[in-house]
Amino acid sequence: MLEQGIDVLIVSEPANLYYLTGYDAWSFYTPQYALVSQDWDRPLCVVRGQDVNGARLTSYLTDDFILGYSDHYIQNPAAHCMEFVARLLTERGKGSARVGYEGDSFFFSGRSLSQLQYHLPNATLVDADALVNWVRSVKSEAEIGYMRQAARLTELTMTKAIDRIKPGVRLADVAAEVYATSVAGLEEYAGEYAAIAPLIPAGVGTSCPHVMWRDEVYQQGDCSTLEISGVKARYHAPQSRTVFLGKPNPKAYDTVQIVLEGIEAVLNTAREGVYAHEVHAAWDAVISKHGIVKDSRCGYSIGIGYPPDWGERTISFRPIDNTLLTENVTMHFMPGVWFDDWGVAITESIRITKTGVECLCNTPRALFIID
Amino acid sequence: MLEQGIDVLIVSEPANLYYLTGYDAWSFYTPQYALVSQDWDRPLCVVRGQDVNGARLTSYLTDDFILGYSDHYIQNPAAHCMEFVARLLTERGKGSARVGYEGDSFFFSGRSLSQLQYHLPNATLVDADALVNWVRSVKSEAEIGYMRQAARLTELTMTKAIDRIKPGVRLADVAAEVYATSVAGLEEYAGEYAAIAPLIPAGVGTSCPHVMWRDEVYQQGDCSTLEISGVKARYHAPQSRTVFLGKPNPKAYDTVQIVLEGIEAVLNTAREGVYAHEVHAAWDAVISKHGIVKDSRCGYSIGIGYPPDWGERTISFRPIDNTLLTENVTMHFMPGVWFDDWGVAITESIRITKTGVECLCNTPRALFIID
Repeated sequence: MLEQGIDVLIVSEPANLYYLTGYDAWSFYTPQYALVSQDWDRPLCVVRGQDVNGARLTSYLTDDFILGYSDHYIQNPAAHCMEFVARLLTERGKGSARVGYEGDSFFFSGRSLSQLQYHLPNATLVDADALVNWVRSVKSEAEIGYMRQAARLTELTMTKAIDRIKPGVRLADVAAEVYATSVAGLEEYAGEYAAIAPLIPAGVGTSCPHVMWRDEVYQQGDCSTLEISGVKARYHAPQSRTVFLGKPNPKAYDTVQIVLEGIEAVLNTAREGVYAHEVHAAWDAVISKHGIVKDSRCGYSIGIGYPPDWGERTISFRPIDNTLLTENVTMHFMPGVWFDDWGVAITESIRITKTGVECLCNTPRALFIID
Repeated sequence: MLEQGIDVLIVSEPANLYYLTGYDAWSFYTPQYALVSQDWDRPLCVVRGQDVNGARLTSYLTDDFILGYSDHYIQNPAAHCMEFVARLLTERGKGSARVGYEGDSFFFSGRSLSQLQYHLPNATLVDADALVNWVRSVKSEAEIGYMRQAARLTELTMTKAIDRIKPGVRLADVAAEVYATSVAGLEEYAGEYAAIAPLIPAGVGTSCPHVMWRDEVYQQGDCSTLEISGVKARYHAPQSRTVFLGKPNPKAYDTVQIVLEGIEAVLNTAREGVYAHEVHAAWDAVISKHGIVKDSRCGYSIGIGYPPDWGERTISFRPIDNTLLTENVTMHFMPGVWFDDWGVAITESIRITKTGVECLCNTPRALFIID
């Protein structure tokens, strides 16, 4: 904030609210903000009136830092919650301040911006998108601990989900297994809801990463991919595996071997002191050599996650990313490749160390074939 | 669009994309739009390159109406997808048109607005928030059919979840049951992921509607609420019930009776030709008489849902809502009441009919007491 000359930051992303205050609830479908200023001891947490008790229960804030607004501001074209925020900032002497906002957050809409401009005419508004996200990109030991706990749930869930796949079984049954196992968790601790629903396409559905199940059943000969994550204290450790129902055709088999070779190249390249684009280059060198083209990034920063995404919107493994990796950066290395009628996804959540990479999950890194 | 003088509408809400094109995938964490103009036969669907196959598989659009953009536009501070949209609109002769956008959508950020202004300097931009949402508010017979199918899943899930509650059981285990049952579905059809995770607080957690489970277990004497929804073809039928572990204290018991009386008043009031605020008034008259105050709305329009919300952001049961209810408006009548250290939620998904109300779910409307 000092570097960007920001006096007050309006934080709207649920993951950033949680990071800064501990507030954690499924209330992010209505406006909620942490207002941060170096002039204040703690962030001010602004939530819907009915969610004040939730902020009391989950955040470290005392009552005078939790402010509930009237339901009048809920989905009302005639009154936007930014009016409440602007009045609050003005009352606290910030009406002419330099006010930062998270410009590309899902939780700071176009109207939030125009209403903020309208109600704070003397302020200087600064798009400080992802500022807190970048702070989050390097994890503490405590955070790494949660991610390792999440990874235990990922491993267990992946194993049980793959065990359920066979011809004639509904995709929905495998989705149900993913939910049940990842949420019930272990004897030592339970799991939580993931920021992304289980992505478990089969057949032609594997030709893109994000199509959801309906009533389909697995068919003999199908390729199937599973992208899932365990969650602990909102920290994620996502992972994908690819499963064939029956022997894959030679071309598919060869493609998977190339992907596995590319993965090894990345795991041997990434470490503190390497640039994000160098990691991508290590991957791309392998697949290009074999004539495979992937024009999307092959990884993104992870940690705390809330719907609609478990990515942090900061570091990506791609040619244009000049971030220098440091210890305890955590990434979902996601070298999914999607073709016209099928695809392959074998991925790892990794922690960057001084000398290399820690794979958070210990699921066997291989093609799974169900006979 | 004609009424608002809009030539082209940029649709960003996943539920609206689905409604207009059939496109359905968990890809809404990156930019995606339906561009609608009366000059074009069909909407143009703009998605990330890797999601083009998903749009082919799930929408009714032919390939020439599906446009994939480069990964360069993903989470890149130097290049926003609105540049792509602006160029596309300019190429198709809409660079000086009246262009509508969904101003308060989660999927149209502040930066989306400022980038659209920057890249379409000759266009007239119009905030047309919730325009498609309002079209969605009255359901077709087919949509009602899906909601009834979703309601079957809600009933089954609620019954099985309540059966699992007893002292010493983890909240997470009940959450796992909710997921497993609602997703696995029935023999005739499977369920889907809900737009909101199971809301199943217990004890002091019931003092607000949105706090999530962690590792807690149910305790003898706890009050507990469950708000869940079955889903079919993305249509929801949410419902809440309240459960006591052991006999509630007399004050709590009396409060629940008042809530049930308020619910009956609403179900006897709502029908085609009644205003949304009259429904609220019927509820408020009962609780006010008994000295209970609820200053939040007691219902909202439902149908298609994507995270973070299964509400449609249109009609609310509240004093300021002057919407005249018509047949096949569908609402989640949600008279939750939250006190300092506990709360009660008994709710119904309802369809407005010419003569009254159809409750979509047949779960007994009562307080559940587990001995």
